[in-house]
Amino acid sequence: MMDCKKALVETQGNLDKAIIVLREKGIAVAAKKSGRIASEGIVHSYIHMGGKIGVIVEINCETDFVAKSEQFVDLAKDIAMQIVAAKPLYVNVDEVTEEELNKEKEILRKQAINEGKKPELIEKMVEGRIKKYYSDVCLLEQPFIKDSSKKVSAIINEAILKLGEKISVRRFVRYEMGEGLEKRVDNLAEEVNKQIAGK
Amino acid sequence: MMDCKKALVETQGNLDKAIIVLREKGIAVAAKKSGRIASEGIVHSYIHMGGKIGVIVEINCETDFVAKSEQFVDLAKDIAMQIVAAKPLYVNVDEVTEEELNKEKEILRKQAINEGKKPELIEKMVEGRIKKYYSDVCLLEQPFIKDSSKKVSAIINEAILKLGEKISVRRFVRYEMGEGLEKRVDNLAEEVNKQIAGK
Repeated sequence: MMDCKKALVETQGNLDKAIIVLREKGIAVAAKKSGRIASEGIVHSYIHMGGKIGVIVEINCETDFVAKSEQFVDLAKDIAMQIVAAKPLYVNVDEVTEEELNKEKEILRKQAINEGKKPELIEKMVEGRIKKYYSDVCLLEQPFIKDSSKKVSAIINEAILKLGEKISVRRFVRYEMGEGLEKRVDNLAEEVNKQIAGK
Repeated sequence: MMDCKKALVETQGNLDKAIIVLREKGIAVAAKKSGRIASEGIVHSYIHMGGKIGVIVEINCETDFVAKSEQFVDLAKDIAMQIVAAKPLYVNVDEVTEEELNKEKEILRKQAINEGKKPELIEKMVEGRIKKYYSDVCLLEQPFIKDSSKKVSAIINEAILKLGEKISVRRFVRYEMGEGLEKRVDNLAEEVNKQIAGK
């Protein structure tokens, strides 16, 4: 323990660097096991269609008491189902990278041009359609699957009010069996090559 | 459908580019829903300690028949438990990046130097200890939790022989509640700063 503190002082509180220093000194540190749990919440999963789609999501709150409450667990279940059904790519708008956003805007811009829109209207249209994009790909912006008049963020806000604690969706992963396997693209490419070759 | 084929021909079979072309033309394409399922298998999850740790894993095989078999599902369960208990970071050795590997070797090299090893022995020691590193962080190299005399890869090979199909672990994610939250490092840094300030 003293070694840890020394290493932390030596590295001015940088945990990752401190672990490296300790390991270099031959002091056994289970680097990947060092995580101290600082926050509360649960990890919830939902498997759909007998294993064809699966979701895992971490939702944080402030106390273990709330983490174990029925309402909080129900919220986690709803969010996991939302992710299975509505396929978000990000938790919130902030997670969409600048690059991704620009790529999307460029598509929408060309789309507007191809529709013959007046140049002075194009940027306005792009901004409008970006909102639609966000509500497609950002979990918190999506219409809630059980009540599409509300956004998912509104459901979370309701839980915050009821339970009296900060609640946030931290991260999620959605696996769909076989998605993105190279084979898929290979098959398509093959088909196209045949067409090009006139077969 | 014809539009899709045209777009694919136009982009020489590049699916991602084809989707962009289609969308620019205003043809409705649910880009993120376009994944055609090419392979078989299951997505399996395991939640430990009432939601403190969760794992999701995709395991592929060749036919739906095998995917639904009891032996295959049991294998998936074992692998998910393995990931919960033994905390791998990668599926296999190939996934460890050059950068990560060099970082690890550098630590082991300094460790050997600090232990006063002879210079001519150091590289040999590093190579030896890298194997230990792999068996720590790569799922397939880990000792199987239910029988540590076997590697996880051996368990999979046994299933391949029994079921007569190619079986592979494609990807996994392991969430531990609260791990890596900024707060943790902030707290440590604060503690260290206090020590430095002599409080």
